[in-house]
Amino acid sequence: MSLSMHAMTVGQFLPMLQNLGRILEKAEAHAAAKKIEAGVLEGLRLTPDMLSFVRQVQLAGDFAKNSTARLAGIEAPKFPDDEKSLAELRARVAKTVDFLAGVSATQLEGAETRHIVIPLRTRTLEMDGLPFLQKWALPNFYFHVTTAYALLRHVGVEVGKQDYLGSV
Amino acid sequence: MSLSMHAMTVGQFLPMLQNLGRILEKAEAHAAAKKIEAGVLEGLRLTPDMLSFVRQVQLAGDFAKNSTARLAGIEAPKFPDDEKSLAELRARVAKTVDFLAGVSATQLEGAETRHIVIPLRTRTLEMDGLPFLQKWALPNFYFHVTTAYALLRHVGVEVGKQDYLGSV
Repeated sequence: MSLSMHAMTVGQFLPMLQNLGRILEKAEAHAAAKKIEAGVLEGLRLTPDMLSFVRQVQLAGDFAKNSTARLAGIEAPKFPDDEKSLAELRARVAKTVDFLAGVSATQLEGAETRHIVIPLRTRTLEMDGLPFLQKWALPNFYFHVTTAYALLRHVGVEVGKQDYLGSV
Repeated sequence: MSLSMHAMTVGQFLPMLQNLGRILEKAEAHAAAKKIEAGVLEGLRLTPDMLSFVRQVQLAGDFAKNSTARLAGIEAPKFPDDEKSLAELRARVAKTVDFLAGVSATQLEGAETRHIVIPLRTRTLEMDGLPFLQKWALPNFYFHVTTAYALLRHVGVEVGKQDYLGSV
């Protein structure tokens, strides 16, 4: 296998989201075993002005699918951000994995020089594919996966680094 | 700029560690302003069986320098893991940045097919450079940077996503 934009996007996003799916399963099992009220894990935050667990999971998937789609110059599926339960979040992650699985290496060929324009709330981000991958797509993706994991660790869900890394 | 192993290692590790250095500065300023006892921020954890803040920062740097060195087939500097303060951690991060700045794109050419052997505590990890980057170096690096950031957020240090991402 050689270094490619596909290897650096789908090749990381897809397995990491599969790991996140298994982490969500563990969280569901934990919630069932401890009879945790619906919405408690979903609403977790480390501090009041941070996004909740639900948003962390949604954003991890969105950075994966939207970044890949932008780099490939295709449309990503849009999800309405209405997940309320861990099971619904897991289904969304699975749909994102399905989308990523359908993006080919050919579609991402030359993506490192593609001009990317991202409308943010307060400004527009414009850069080429490579810096977009380095400074935006990957740091944001890993940020939200790790934060989701950290929130579960914080409240005693039995997940470990191996769940985050998957089979290496 | 084209996609390369240098762009995917040094090109991510170096700016992210510079961001981590600035986050550490903010933590130092916070500790001084709030008169936080020495060792408190350094010893932070989200749960008792997780590594402390000091270890998260040390590991973020170590995954960056050791992964880059393994991929380039060179020796990384070894640090004795004796940092006790935020200032010492910041100095370590700066030394790691200096090391990374000295690794050239030429040294990393072809690293995607280099055979990597990593002795872990319980087993030996063996894989080619590309999967090593995808499944080990990047996920572990971002994990520890994000966890260090999350620990500071958790106790009210005024850092935000922009500090993590740096100037994008």
